[in-house]
Amino acid sequence: MNRYFDYAATHPMTKAALDHYVAMARGVYGNPSSLHIAGFMAEDYLTEARRLIKQALGLDMLRGKLLFTGSGSESNYIALTSLRKRMKGKEVITSWQEHDSVSLLLDEWEAEGVTVHRLKLKDGRFDHETFTRLLDRDIGLVTFQHVNSDTGWVLPLHHILCQLKYKKVLLHVDGVQALGKIPVSVDGIDAYSFSAHKVGGPKGIGGLYMERLLPPPYYPGHHQYGIRPGTIDVPGICAFVKAFTERHEARTRHERNYVAFRAILKEKTSSYVTWLEFEQQSPAIFSFVSSRRDGQWWMTELDALGFQVSAGSACRAGQNGPNRMLESLGFETSACHGLVRISFGEGTTIEATSALADAIVTLARRVESYEQTLSR
Amino acid sequence: MNRYFDYAATHPMTKAALDHYVAMARGVYGNPSSLHIAGFMAEDYLTEARRLIKQALGLDMLRGKLLFTGSGSESNYIALTSLRKRMKGKEVITSWQEHDSVSLLLDEWEAEGVTVHRLKLKDGRFDHETFTRLLDRDIGLVTFQHVNSDTGWVLPLHHILCQLKYKKVLLHVDGVQALGKIPVSVDGIDAYSFSAHKVGGPKGIGGLYMERLLPPPYYPGHHQYGIRPGTIDVPGICAFVKAFTERHEARTRHERNYVAFRAILKEKTSSYVTWLEFEQQSPAIFSFVSSRRDGQWWMTELDALGFQVSAGSACRAGQNGPNRMLESLGFETSACHGLVRISFGEGTTIEATSALADAIVTLARRVESYEQTLSR
Repeated sequence: MNRYFDYAATHPMTKAALDHYVAMARGVYGNPSSLHIAGFMAEDYLTEARRLIKQALGLDMLRGKLLFTGSGSESNYIALTSLRKRMKGKEVITSWQEHDSVSLLLDEWEAEGVTVHRLKLKDGRFDHETFTRLLDRDIGLVTFQHVNSDTGWVLPLHHILCQLKYKKVLLHVDGVQALGKIPVSVDGIDAYSFSAHKVGGPKGIGGLYMERLLPPPYYPGHHQYGIRPGTIDVPGICAFVKAFTERHEARTRHERNYVAFRAILKEKTSSYVTWLEFEQQSPAIFSFVSSRRDGQWWMTELDALGFQVSAGSACRAGQNGPNRMLESLGFETSACHGLVRISFGEGTTIEATSALADAIVTLARRVESYEQTLSR
Repeated sequence: MNRYFDYAATHPMTKAALDHYVAMARGVYGNPSSLHIAGFMAEDYLTEARRLIKQALGLDMLRGKLLFTGSGSESNYIALTSLRKRMKGKEVITSWQEHDSVSLLLDEWEAEGVTVHRLKLKDGRFDHETFTRLLDRDIGLVTFQHVNSDTGWVLPLHHILCQLKYKKVLLHVDGVQALGKIPVSVDGIDAYSFSAHKVGGPKGIGGLYMERLLPPPYYPGHHQYGIRPGTIDVPGICAFVKAFTERHEARTRHERNYVAFRAILKEKTSSYVTWLEFEQQSPAIFSFVSSRRDGQWWMTELDALGFQVSAGSACRAGQNGPNRMLESLGFETSACHGLVRISFGEGTTIEATSALADAIVTLARRVESYEQTLSR
């Protein structure tokens, strides 16, 4: 039984993606910059990969540009660094609970004198009121995570787009946990980041949709519209496209499964832990908060029972601060270490989910009886 | 018959590397930052990968740090951007014939006011005299390509290290075309760049050996000593290590083969084209210069006959400037478009090399007879 429940950290390559990688590595090994048949063939496959992604996003071939990077983090870095050069206003709006690749970079910007506004949620919802008020300031850039990686909370993108419609404000959206998991449209967005290994593609591949070509973040080069240097990994990109398009087509079927998994977890464990649910939520992520033990304890104990879960984004592993999303949701600081994230993927089954729920109950009861012993 | 002679642009993944990739993608898919068994396993494989590379470089496990990046170009970018923050002197020495990822970045530095000295060769050799004279200036950083990607020319690294020994000058070496092809020692070097797909590993993986930890080039993050963000591609890295260690062990056998291939090419074609030979040269690259047609013409005509060669580094594809290495070697500007690069790899055979030599002769004779017709 597959007891891996950390698909939001990384989704193993799907069989189809891995088979495709092997075929491509064998047959389409050329450097797409080479001006001979091996290079032209690689270039053709790259063009087709871009077309398939645009098609899945509902875009025609001539709309925007697709850049391939080394990771979702690099996509975020390129998007923000490049958009910064195009900012008309001087201040930035973001959220309290961004991924480190956005929030740590914005920390640097702040140190350089840029004013960064970090919106918290308001009663579990996007704080439209504060956002609208902030837009009256000299805002040049807005950057938000589409789906929160800790809880699956979904940004009300449509409302934000309406508010930005007649303003000269650039918009970047970090879609790493959204692509392939919820419906995605890039309409009205200047730059949209995504990552291959979150949907069953290979690690080491990220992507960035750009509505208009961005200025180079590193130095003006020759590869990929002059934006990103380095030989393009065509086999990896094509394997990603295989995983993504499959996932895109099967999204509603996956969603039905994930809803069933969530129901099982809730039904069996709700008397012991608090599940985080939102009006708009990615079906692939389901997190609970426990006030009696922190997330690291749960992760370690569940690991000992054979289940891999997460105590929040793997990118902050070893960093023991309070969880930013729980802070944003208004939890007291003492409770902000208690997040446990369960995430679903291709290999998740009802059986395994049911076993995981039982394990959570076992552990919760063990904590209870230990505390009762202490209090006697 | 395999007629691919552009292994310096990219070497197809070796069978062993691809098999290893598949096994790793299936079995070791965890995010090495995750604190559960899937993550720990990935972390263990990553540690072992670093150990194997250090072992092949003759280093013990505790010496220096190995960073994995997205490409050789990114390794160069990180090395230079990070070393710049540590420079004591204000000026930089490099060569006229660096890879674009170094020379274009240094163009940016120049625009920002840094003085960059670009050494040309002197009679086909490193210009020790000028280098020594330049070292009397306020030099902070020296960056050189170990093996020139257009011609296989090898930097006399030992002499340069002797000259830098008692100076506070940082040294970066771009070893992308050197690793696995010539003996490599990183002793005395502050940062050494390399690339996986040049030795039969996957595309999308670069590496950087750092003698001491460098400051972060992007922003202070959590992954890889805080230097490079993004989920680490453990299957890709392990596949690279497989390809590299195999190649490392078989280096002298490959060298014997390549020497034979060069002999065949020279013997059959020397009356038609001029082969570029140096005292110290990578056996894997052999280039000729033709005064009657430019490199693009040769590449296209040979491609039509089924042979893939290159008219210089693929990273400058579509950029029709004169070849910098030929300029550095002192060729007249009119001749600096005539470089044709042949490069060898795992799949190269005597048969195919012999057929390539015949094709070169056929084309050279066609040019001759065409010119005779014209002059009649």
